[in-house]
Amino acid sequence: MDTSRIVVLIMAGGSGTRFWPSSRRKLPKQFLSFDGGNSLLAETVARLDGLVPRERVYVITGAEHATLAEEHAGVPKANIIAEPLGRDTAACIGIGAMVARTIREDAVLLVLAADHLVGRLDRFRAALLRAAELAADGPTLVNIGLRPDRPATGYGYIEIGERLDGSEPPAWKVRSFREKPDHETAARFVLGGDFLWNSGIFAFGARTILEALARYLPELAAGLKGLRDPRDEQELARVYPTLPKISIDYGVMERAERRVVVEADFEWDDLGTFEAVARHADPHTGHNLSRGGAVFHDAVDSLVVNDAPGTVVLSGVEGLLVVRTGDTVLVMQRKDAERVKDVVRELEERGRSDLL
Amino acid sequence: MDTSRIVVLIMAGGSGTRFWPSSRRKLPKQFLSFDGGNSLLAETVARLDGLVPRERVYVITGAEHATLAEEHAGVPKANIIAEPLGRDTAACIGIGAMVARTIREDAVLLVLAADHLVGRLDRFRAALLRAAELAADGPTLVNIGLRPDRPATGYGYIEIGERLDGSEPPAWKVRSFREKPDHETAARFVLGGDFLWNSGIFAFGARTILEALARYLPELAAGLKGLRDPRDEQELARVYPTLPKISIDYGVMERAERRVVVEADFEWDDLGTFEAVARHADPHTGHNLSRGGAVFHDAVDSLVVNDAPGTVVLSGVEGLLVVRTGDTVLVMQRKDAERVKDVVRELEERGRSDLL
Repeated sequence: MDTSRIVVLIMAGGSGTRFWPSSRRKLPKQFLSFDGGNSLLAETVARLDGLVPRERVYVITGAEHATLAEEHAGVPKANIIAEPLGRDTAACIGIGAMVARTIREDAVLLVLAADHLVGRLDRFRAALLRAAELAADGPTLVNIGLRPDRPATGYGYIEIGERLDGSEPPAWKVRSFREKPDHETAARFVLGGDFLWNSGIFAFGARTILEALARYLPELAAGLKGLRDPRDEQELARVYPTLPKISIDYGVMERAERRVVVEADFEWDDLGTFEAVARHADPHTGHNLSRGGAVFHDAVDSLVVNDAPGTVVLSGVEGLLVVRTGDTVLVMQRKDAERVKDVVRELEERGRSDLL
Repeated sequence: MDTSRIVVLIMAGGSGTRFWPSSRRKLPKQFLSFDGGNSLLAETVARLDGLVPRERVYVITGAEHATLAEEHAGVPKANIIAEPLGRDTAACIGIGAMVARTIREDAVLLVLAADHLVGRLDRFRAALLRAAELAADGPTLVNIGLRPDRPATGYGYIEIGERLDGSEPPAWKVRSFREKPDHETAARFVLGGDFLWNSGIFAFGARTILEALARYLPELAAGLKGLRDPRDEQELARVYPTLPKISIDYGVMERAERRVVVEADFEWDDLGTFEAVARHADPHTGHNLSRGGAVFHDAVDSLVVNDAPGTVVLSGVEGLLVVRTGDTVLVMQRKDAERVKDVVRELEERGRSDLL
């Protein structure tokens, strides 16, 4: 295909609650480094170098993070789209498709998240190209999926049907979407071989996705139509509050007809929780894991995420999660790691926004 | 009595392991502030102002802490006695008594610890004076005791006998010493009314305690006799390694004949463990306690000692002790708070002296 048709939209709208205190309101996860190097957002952009010129890479983020996003992404300032408030992914993608069409009528929109971990760059790029090709052809909505290697309950799954003809990586018709299954169901999905993880990476013909929005989310489409310039801050401030808050998965993908998933085999993690971080942390004895300075002494099943210089020492404890930043320490049970949001909500209710 | 006979010896030899990581080898507990103000050592000296001039206040500490001790104590440099290594309290007191006799033959030695918390200064000073008076009279060894208000198992107890005639505060003949009893025994001691806590504060005639050392610890006394100048660093370096390592309680007080205890009623805490610190910390709901910034969210029975700017958040945990300094966090079970020393030993064995 003609890769100059590709326009990239990087969704960088996280609010920083799932990784508190590592992430903060002023510095959500996408602006943090996972490995001490560049931030996740910077890595996401860099991963596209050579595939798509930065002039065609757009970043959509909360207005309060626009300056930060510009610094991290290294794309033209005009390519930062500042949302006045969060309206989930369907609105983001609608804006992105509108912007893409201002570049060219036949634009293919590649949608990426700003906060994923990706390995095997060659395979990643091959999958993106294949997805873009499939989306370029016509009215097909394309997901990128990954073969699950464990019964993760935090991911969405895509049930695959008939295999499409054509080159590698393989692509399949989508039979159904299944949001976060319970453990038993997830185990069945993994064993059966008919399910892929939904990576949250999409390819759409810009016109196709706008048509799909008009059909499945008419209120959202009508709101977007009111925008003369989809990048104008004042126009966004006027229209955004009227848009329904819904994800592209619920709003469109689960209901659309022509859906395809490319089965990619790059390394991928959406780093959704501290437990996800643990998968990439340093192992110790006793099923302990750590990132950053940590000492385990008669401690078991514990996870330390230490983002500041210095050391966390766990002695005689079991099943704890300890997260340390320069000014804050969070101690909770590791099994509750997905409930960090609740802690953030509690702090907010107690008027401790200074900590968030 | 003639208070110009009083010479004070402040024992400031702690090594910084019981309060790790709040205390470090380079900064043991006596050099830390308990309340954000002056250090415990500085407070100990200041408490004597007006009672004993600083020229007669001596501080004995490890050679590695001599400079720090001088800064904190605000006594003449010549009044800092630097021990080349720790030999427990009998050796300290022997040195102190020798020094006191160089000032005057009939010196009365008041022995204090550098790391206690004291309240009700008027009562404290009245008790010191009464103890000095009793020691000045003759061959009596004098302890200061405190009426126990709970069955503490970490303290030594003094069984009292016949009450002495004379002024307040009351003084009693000592019947026996009981080191750290179990909980049941401690409870019996408290209820019975015949036991006082041993504060570790003593008053001795300088000649009397030297005679007692000669009698009960002849090896120690012989070693000390070899010192021409008990403050000379090189002489101490030569003699100290040969001295037996024993406390004044075990070595002398438990075996001596003429012993008296003054029953004082000032506020006192030897701040021996983080649990002791907890007695003076801020209460929260759920039996939680904290010193420094802390938030408890569905957490119970936990203790946070936060010695650095910033916040420790405990969520959904029970019975934890979390100690935070600028560069280190220790997480352990609160019931194991007395085992901090074990953690320090473990870190040493792992070659992590950098943390100590």
